[in-house]
Amino acid sequence: MRISELSAVSGVPLPTVKYYLREGLLPAGRSTARNQADYGPEHLARLRLVRALIEIGNLSVADTRSVLAASDDPQLPLDEVMGAAHDAVTSRSAPTRIEPAWSEARAAVQSMAEQRGWRVEPQAPALDQAADAVATVLAADMPELLPLIDVYFDATEELARKEVEAVLSMGSPDQVVRGVVIGTMVGGALLNALRLLAQQSISIKLLDPAEAAQPAPPSAP
Amino acid sequence: MRISELSAVSGVPLPTVKYYLREGLLPAGRSTARNQADYGPEHLARLRLVRALIEIGNLSVADTRSVLAASDDPQLPLDEVMGAAHDAVTSRSAPTRIEPAWSEARAAVQSMAEQRGWRVEPQAPALDQAADAVATVLAADMPELLPLIDVYFDATEELARKEVEAVLSMGSPDQVVRGVVIGTMVGGALLNALRLLAQQSISIKLLDPAEAAQPAPPSAP
Repeated sequence: MRISELSAVSGVPLPTVKYYLREGLLPAGRSTARNQADYGPEHLARLRLVRALIEIGNLSVADTRSVLAASDDPQLPLDEVMGAAHDAVTSRSAPTRIEPAWSEARAAVQSMAEQRGWRVEPQAPALDQAADAVATVLAADMPELLPLIDVYFDATEELARKEVEAVLSMGSPDQVVRGVVIGTMVGGALLNALRLLAQQSISIKLLDPAEAAQPAPPSAP
Repeated sequence: MRISELSAVSGVPLPTVKYYLREGLLPAGRSTARNQADYGPEHLARLRLVRALIEIGNLSVADTRSVLAASDDPQLPLDEVMGAAHDAVTSRSAPTRIEPAWSEARAAVQSMAEQRGWRVEPQAPALDQAADAVATVLAADMPELLPLIDVYFDATEELARKEVEAVLSMGSPDQVVRGVVIGTMVGGALLNALRLLAQQSISIKLLDPAEAAQPAPPSAP
């Protein structure tokens, strides 16, 4: 297909497609005539991946390039390709961290994960983010919230297995990387939004006497 | 206690405490002498709440004031106090929404929630956020990820019950509001960070043959 079709099929604006070509994020098409090139399904797949990394993963062009390099490296095992995509979309700038509380919280999270048999990379950005949250809960002096840490561990253990299996079922490294980006960013947003809806629903049921007195809605089992 | 002690005990800088007083977020202390006022535990509790709303919930002063008004209204049932806090910390500026796909995604989420017997407020910001995520997954044309929507519903249903019960065990409306802020924002961050750690752990176990061949670590059951 021509570049204009590639743009139409992918929904990516033509100037953006040309920009990705110039930046080397998208390989050139096969030349067919002067000023014309032909693009195949492999270009479409790559374009979708680039788009997901930049638009959904919020990656810079440079970070996108290194995730693509990992995806293209035939020597790299798939778990390292996934790891590169994962680290790129989950690294964030660090908030203020008060010591020694923060390092203690980080060690506590790492130890809880290891006791569950999790393989934790000691430099994982997610470990820092978990430590940020646990340190905040500890500093807030709300002991009622502490048991939730175990609840979150339990919930994510089962959830993550299903997510990883879904992403792995997608086949090619390009698709797996796109699945990691969409699964991690969009899946996280969906999980959190549903959690908020469920919280509201449960507080209404627990606290509003009018609701509590009502029978279950007809659609419930 | 004096204002300087209030600052020291709460960890909130003195100029910030004075700013909250001027803005009416913190009630004035009892006058004890010229230029002196006495602050009690109720001031400390309120200061901690204001701090949580502004620093963790990222609320503006105006939004903080209206959550405090809800918390202070003796006529307002606790579920509406929680709802006010919840809506304030979860409303976000909307991303680009392509119609009719977005409205269809929103209706689908609402209908799935209702079929589970959830009480969904039709104007809940979380419903919009869930629609953003579902519309993105649908547009990405990755059918492998669709079954995860049900997985997320299942996971959050159980999780949210435990979270709401933990927050409700905290007693006073001020503490419940602070619990909602910390539980919603920090709990969400922790849940997501642990989910990422679990995903990494599972991909390593599934994909790295060296890891797969190893026996379970000694700390696992």
